[in-house]
Amino acid sequence: MKKEYTDQLLLDFGEDGTALVPVVTQDARTKEVLILAFANKEAFEETRRSGLATYWSRSRGELWKKGMTSGDTLKIQEIRINCDQNSLIYLVTPQGKGACHAKKNDGSPYSSCYYRAINQDGTLSFIEE
Amino acid sequence: MKKEYTDQLLLDFGEDGTALVPVVTQDARTKEVLILAFANKEAFEETRRSGLATYWSRSRGELWKKGMTSGDTLKIQEIRINCDQNSLIYLVTPQGKGACHAKKNDGSPYSSCYYRAINQDGTLSFIEE
Repeated sequence: MKKEYTDQLLLDFGEDGTALVPVVTQDARTKEVLILAFANKEAFEETRRSGLATYWSRSRGELWKKGMTSGDTLKIQEIRINCDQNSLIYLVTPQGKGACHAKKNDGSPYSSCYYRAINQDGTLSFIEE
Repeated sequence: MKKEYTDQLLLDFGEDGTALVPVVTQDARTKEVLILAFANKEAFEETRRSGLATYWSRSRGELWKKGMTSGDTLKIQEIRINCDQNSLIYLVTPQGKGACHAKKNDGSPYSSCYYRAINQDGTLSFIEE
């Protein structure tokens, strides 16, 4: 059966099993998109095992268990997969103060990485302060 | 000023200007994530110019003006950018019947590409029928 219509998980990590898939992480309650990151097979399996959002850090080249140092972990409520089985949504409940590494003026983290809107003139407006 | 805190658009399409950035497309009203796709500089500029969600099709290697053949265009309400200025959210109002190329049993398109949840046992449940 085609990957769009099957009830079997056929998430594709490439021929050698090392490919990355993009992961949209969304607050399960507010539906706010918090982060976009990537998962390899190890990160996906660790996410399912631990129930905490885990990614593959492309910049550091290592498994990234979100919030392990900051305490801002993201508890998995549900994982969704797209038609082509090449991307994921993690629906999560944030356990800490925010999901972004960037900080507001008061020193607390932004809840979402998408705290700026692009204006018509190409400048950015901060929508969460 | 660092890219996280500036009000200047510094979206990075790489040294030769041909890199792709991932784009989360979200229904502006329901906050449902509809599609994850990619944009190059041309797709991003066409999106801003036309007010309709436009991507770069990696499989076809061409500009992809969503819905030009099906009528299922996605009208842009707002574009957001992340802390690192390397991904986007298109907040849209769908103009057609759905955003996904996959079809439900009744022949209409799924509103979102993420119409399946991954169960604990590794099977998939259809959450939109």
